[in-house]
Amino acid sequence: MDAFVTSIDVRFRDIDAMGHVNNAVYATYLEQARTDYFRRVLEEDIAKTSTVIATLSIDYRDPILLEDESATVEVTVPDVGTSSIPMEYTVRTDRGVAAEAESVQVLYDTEAETSVPIPDDWRSTIREYHDE
Amino acid sequence: MDAFVTSIDVRFRDIDAMGHVNNAVYATYLEQARTDYFRRVLEEDIAKTSTVIATLSIDYRDPILLEDESATVEVTVPDVGTSSIPMEYTVRTDRGVAAEAESVQVLYDTEAETSVPIPDDWRSTIREYHDE
Amino acid sequence: MDAFVTSIDVRFRDIDAMGHVNNAVYATYLEQARTDYFRRVLEEDIAKTSTVIATLSIDYRDPILLEDESATVEVTVPDVGTSSIPMEYTVRTDRGVAAEAESVQVLYDTEAETSVPIPDDWRSTIREYHDE
Amino acid sequence: MDAFVTSIDVRFRDIDAMGHVNNAVYATYLEQARTDYFRRVLEEDIAKTSTVIATLSIDYRDPILLEDESATVEVTVPDVGTSSIPMEYTVRTDRGVAAEAESVQVLYDTEAETSVPIPDDWRSTIREYHDE
Repeated sequence: MDAFVTSIDVRFRDIDAMGHVNNAVYATYLEQARTDYFRRVLEEDIAKTSTVIATLSIDYRDPILLEDESATVEVTVPDVGTSSIPMEYTVRTDRGVAAEAESVQVLYDTEAETSVPIPDDWRSTIREYHDE
Repeated sequence: MDAFVTSIDVRFRDIDAMGHVNNAVYATYLEQARTDYFRRVLEEDIAKTSTVIATLSIDYRDPILLEDESATVEVTVPDVGTSSIPMEYTVRTDRGVAAEAESVQVLYDTEAETSVPIPDDWRSTIREYHDE
Repeated sequence: MDAFVTSIDVRFRDIDAMGHVNNAVYATYLEQARTDYFRRVLEEDIAKTSTVIATLSIDYRDPILLEDESATVEVTVPDVGTSSIPMEYTVRTDRGVAAEAESVQVLYDTEAETSVPIPDDWRSTIREYHDE
Repeated sequence: MDAFVTSIDVRFRDIDAMGHVNNAVYATYLEQARTDYFRRVLEEDIAKTSTVIATLSIDYRDPILLEDESATVEVTVPDVGTSSIPMEYTVRTDRGVAAEAESVQVLYDTEAETSVPIPDDWRSTIREYHDE
């Protein structure tokens, strides 16, 4: 499966008292990868879609440092559900894998307060992008 | 098992473009609960210990809103490992459960680059605190 | 002039690589003080008003540390303008003054793209609160 | 005077409940511009120097939006002091000037708790860079 890859600049503000990128900031890097995925693959502004995150899990493998200057995030979508988009991520620096992670996004109708089906064109675009 | 409970004030800055507390900020709330746990239960400054986070997973149940003003985080430690402290969290607002989460912290010797055993006094203090 | 005073908990995430509260986080503390001011003094949800910040200046006097646990922010409003609310702040820890700051908020009609007059009841409430 | 220019990617997490880049995040953009300035112009890791920020002021001119995707920050150093480096900033998006700002950094000996003179090579490098 082909991965979507995006690059995130490491900011001074991302570093915590331990001297490396804070654990919660990894979640921000994954979120930014999703934002870029929606923008580049689905041609959608994620802030204007009504997706919500249902679950997130992160395996921290190696610290990310200010001197790394940037990290890349690889995103794959193993299987689009009825209303959900599962995503798998590998975060890397030049020194190797920094984290592996998974999330599930759910498409949600906030007024009706129910999940709604993933649009067919998203589904086909995602499948074609990853060459499944 | 008795839980450690701490309260986190919701900040305007925690809210994102969707109008509720950002998903990565939940990780910050859990981190703050760990900081308070180390301070109150272990009487340690977490920034001066050499613990690193190995894994984190979050189930998002309900949005946290600015008007909630605060959230509580309950922390339990199911079983202290040789070098690791697993933690389980429930995040609540007055409206109910906002998230459930788990993390594993590892005690690490950054110079030797190996994990080190949890001190006996931490182990006994944690067990006594949770009345195991 | 009587000041509005609010307390901000220092989070682990507020600390940067230098080991003290990051300079940008002082701006977040001031923003949280404004949020609390709108909530307690004006009985408004600042996120639902259309105020925008026009200027901000901060004099950093002393670091804020994780072990300070909290900081207080004193807010005074020296003189309500036609469409603007100037605010003056003193940030303190138990060790003394950490920063002094000033901001100007402007009430703005985002659709018409013009500033709009401060409501009379806000003006009188602010004046009475500070016993001017 | 020639300006140092750097580009900052706008993150989803930078956006607040108002739908544009949060006011405190502008301070983070300026900090990142300083970090890049130290890295590229002075060939120093700012986290390993003992500079502290003394003052910061920001004039907010125009919102920065998620769809701007990035902002540039121009940095000039009008006049290096004995122990201080004043910096002037212009933050731009493709739509125009988003903010103008000023800061003063002080070089500080944290053990002796006094300011220390700017090294001569920093002073000459800064002057040459800006072609003063």
